[in-house]
Amino acid sequence: MSELNPILAELKGSSYLSTGDLSREQFEALLDLAIAQKQGSASYGKPLDGKSVILLFFNPSLRTRTSMVVGVRQLGGEEVLLEIGKGVWNLEHREGIVMDGANAEHIKEAIPVLASYADAIAVRCFPSMSDYEEDKTEPVLSAFSKYSPVPILNMESATHHPMQGGADMMTIKEKLGSVAGRKVVLSWAYHPKALPMAVPNSFALASSQLGAHVTLACPPEFLLDQSLMDDAKARAEAAGGSFSISHDLNEAATDADVIYAKSWGSLQYYGRLDEEVEMRKAYRDWMISGDVMSRTNNGLFMHCLPVRRNVVVGDEVLDGPHSVVVDEAENRLHFQKTMMSVYLNNG
Amino acid sequence: MSELNPILAELKGSSYLSTGDLSREQFEALLDLAIAQKQGSASYGKPLDGKSVILLFFNPSLRTRTSMVVGVRQLGGEEVLLEIGKGVWNLEHREGIVMDGANAEHIKEAIPVLASYADAIAVRCFPSMSDYEEDKTEPVLSAFSKYSPVPILNMESATHHPMQGGADMMTIKEKLGSVAGRKVVLSWAYHPKALPMAVPNSFALASSQLGAHVTLACPPEFLLDQSLMDDAKARAEAAGGSFSISHDLNEAATDADVIYAKSWGSLQYYGRLDEEVEMRKAYRDWMISGDVMSRTNNGLFMHCLPVRRNVVVGDEVLDGPHSVVVDEAENRLHFQKTMMSVYLNNG
Amino acid sequence: MSELNPILAELKGSSYLSTGDLSREQFEALLDLAIAQKQGSASYGKPLDGKSVILLFFNPSLRTRTSMVVGVRQLGGEEVLLEIGKGVWNLEHREGIVMDGANAEHIKEAIPVLASYADAIAVRCFPSMSDYEEDKTEPVLSAFSKYSPVPILNMESATHHPMQGGADMMTIKEKLGSVAGRKVVLSWAYHPKALPMAVPNSFALASSQLGAHVTLACPPEFLLDQSLMDDAKARAEAAGGSFSISHDLNEAATDADVIYAKSWGSLQYYGRLDEEVEMRKAYRDWMISGDVMSRTNNGLFMHCLPVRRNVVVGDEVLDGPHSVVVDEAENRLHFQKTMMSVYLNNG
Repeated sequence: MSELNPILAELKGSSYLSTGDLSREQFEALLDLAIAQKQGSASYGKPLDGKSVILLFFNPSLRTRTSMVVGVRQLGGEEVLLEIGKGVWNLEHREGIVMDGANAEHIKEAIPVLASYADAIAVRCFPSMSDYEEDKTEPVLSAFSKYSPVPILNMESATHHPMQGGADMMTIKEKLGSVAGRKVVLSWAYHPKALPMAVPNSFALASSQLGAHVTLACPPEFLLDQSLMDDAKARAEAAGGSFSISHDLNEAATDADVIYAKSWGSLQYYGRLDEEVEMRKAYRDWMISGDVMSRTNNGLFMHCLPVRRNVVVGDEVLDGPHSVVVDEAENRLHFQKTMMSVYLNNG
Repeated sequence: MSELNPILAELKGSSYLSTGDLSREQFEALLDLAIAQKQGSASYGKPLDGKSVILLFFNPSLRTRTSMVVGVRQLGGEEVLLEIGKGVWNLEHREGIVMDGANAEHIKEAIPVLASYADAIAVRCFPSMSDYEEDKTEPVLSAFSKYSPVPILNMESATHHPMQGGADMMTIKEKLGSVAGRKVVLSWAYHPKALPMAVPNSFALASSQLGAHVTLACPPEFLLDQSLMDDAKARAEAAGGSFSISHDLNEAATDADVIYAKSWGSLQYYGRLDEEVEMRKAYRDWMISGDVMSRTNNGLFMHCLPVRRNVVVGDEVLDGPHSVVVDEAENRLHFQKTMMSVYLNNG
Repeated sequence: MSELNPILAELKGSSYLSTGDLSREQFEALLDLAIAQKQGSASYGKPLDGKSVILLFFNPSLRTRTSMVVGVRQLGGEEVLLEIGKGVWNLEHREGIVMDGANAEHIKEAIPVLASYADAIAVRCFPSMSDYEEDKTEPVLSAFSKYSPVPILNMESATHHPMQGGADMMTIKEKLGSVAGRKVVLSWAYHPKALPMAVPNSFALASSQLGAHVTLACPPEFLLDQSLMDDAKARAEAAGGSFSISHDLNEAATDADVIYAKSWGSLQYYGRLDEEVEMRKAYRDWMISGDVMSRTNNGLFMHCLPVRRNVVVGDEVLDGPHSVVVDEAENRLHFQKTMMSVYLNNG
């Protein structure tokens, strides 16, 4: 790889935990590099030559797993894929405890040992979905950050999915030239289950960081975390954009450049899954249809996948010319390769 | 790799779904190349350098998995191994459906996304064993062929196992010089369970394509699919061979050059597993014993493995000098490497 | 890699099953090479270039799996990781049996087939914990040794863990200059469950082989296998060391250079897990505390990990300056790379 942009060189050796850790200039430079590398006008090189990256999954994955394995190897590195059994964190993280129960190993040993075998650790650790105050502290990701001497890469944690956020912004920039100034609607959608909020959090934050006019469109019970929304609003305004909330999907969609659909759970009902499922049935019709899309400015349809057809989005939208969901998924590979070529670069 | 035989060059970029897609000339050329590469008189080269192959398993595998991982890497490529949970296809494939049930992702997105990360997708997808009309349509493999822009490689589907078929023919050609003109007996054998028919289908088809005198030896309830047998018969006769059926194992084995043993389920009882298991008990003695082998022309004993000793075949045969089952398994690696070096060749 | 020490060159192509197969000179040379390679004064080279190593796990693993995958690849090789379902050996190993039950494949085929795809097979196969006479025969590891034409590497079997033993000796030699003459205490510790004895067996044997003054400190019910202790004693004395038994931890710890803690099950209660768990409760206080460590000669604290804090060892010891548990785990990678560079060397 040729000389790294000095703005990006500052990121060498850091952990990639949230796009929020990036300045707007760094984020734009990272996206420009990803687009240039995808298009072949810049080379990825082999920045991971001789390096090993542990991919540690506490939760299932198909897309992230495949794109990370392919990406690490295409950059010249070796991956070690580890799946923690049945989604249960059987490592102890409490200090001073007498470990005579089910947890056989403490993170104070486990993390330094894994780090001694590798040059970076990528982690996927979903929220418990039962206690929001605890989930918000990112108990697993924080422990990795605290005890690992090597960089940590977030493959979706309790509250953020910055690899998806990066690929999403790359896709908008690739298709529309810029994120700044674009009218971007992040729309909640119906789904039979309460899902984590990492993807909408990262999309709201990332698009705000880059100066979009962001509208969060959702039923009243489905607002995002207040501090996340406050942060997004402040960043959007600092970058010349805006952040607003609408409870009327049709109104929000009018003249939009991008409709980003996603389902997530209600913070008000966090941990009360049965009640939540009843409540959300009232919003069964909150779906991105061809009618919604017709109100936009020839807007792009985006979704992180997997997506439920004719529940979250109509066939006519997903199979239509404005859907960029496969490009978005492909950009996961490109964005992650670029991110690793910067963060894990020793050159 | 040196210049590819023009007959084989026509296969570049194709999917490998069944040996039936090959002309006799192409099939013979592929086997000759595999033997030459195994023996070292032709080089495999590194045709997969910089390429990624997804190995997608809907069903368990030890032999196929190991030989494919080793093969892809020895050709210079990278593999990504994905196992769909518990053998259940949790992807939706019906058109126009409202996806509010258990299936979270539609193949119309899943396949193009996987294809965007890789240069080929190898798939193992066994039959349901409950509805033959549906299994015969190859619902999973067909969907991959339809929606993937990159080549699909069949690692055993509902009705065919062309990697096994190729390795089997390679083994006969290696040991006996040719398949054409050889007296080859494909014999059903007893087994406590009804097994899929992919292996016997592919053996019957492949040996017929290459002009063997093929005898299918089985109890009356265990004939193969009629259209498969018709196709095999037509191809065998076109290639100077023949295809016949016998319900007398001893008679069929007389003067045979090859006894290929395999157990499979009854089409007449498809989906009625309990009844089938009762019915098949009448054929408990249908086993390849030393006595059966003594009637052959010093015939080879073949089986795709795993094999049940003293149920499908006697110890005296499997441990004897005419058993080539380990060579057959080893040839899986060689045949698959040659096949990939041809089909996935960009040069 | 430069020319191999002639003493080590004798090991090329052998299986690595137990440190007991090494002469004292070979063992010391192997450890010296591992330390030199870790420190960079000798190069590992790429002795596995073009080679494949199968990593076959009958039991779970995090540390061994990660260090073996990283190690094989750093030496230029390719690994194939295979996990036998749910810890059950569904391969048949009895001779002459009629295979009409649950076991679908016989090791007489399975092992040669796997060997045909690879240059070595590494195996993890824990004891049954129900029948000591059978476990002591190492039924699985022995079968691999008998039927494999390629070297077998023991990743922890029923009675030995020579990769751990090697890394443990490397750590002592690295920290203290030598194993010979050091006062080394192998201490049993309380744990809620009866664990296998492979680690203490290998530690007792290896430290004896190298001439340490070894004390086995344990309650009377937790002596190691008598023949193993006899062998250790004979080897220790031949190498200028000694092997003794103490049932008083405080006394044993006095002036020790190393305290190696580990929990294991009682041979007297083998297969009677409920009774054993009751009996062991009497020894709940058998733990390595700061008080125990204060009696030593500034002794190192060692444990193979995972370790239960405040059950096996107190926080004050594990977090203190004499704990070398993370170094020990890191040395797994280095020792294994050196071992493979010697045993799997074709040069």
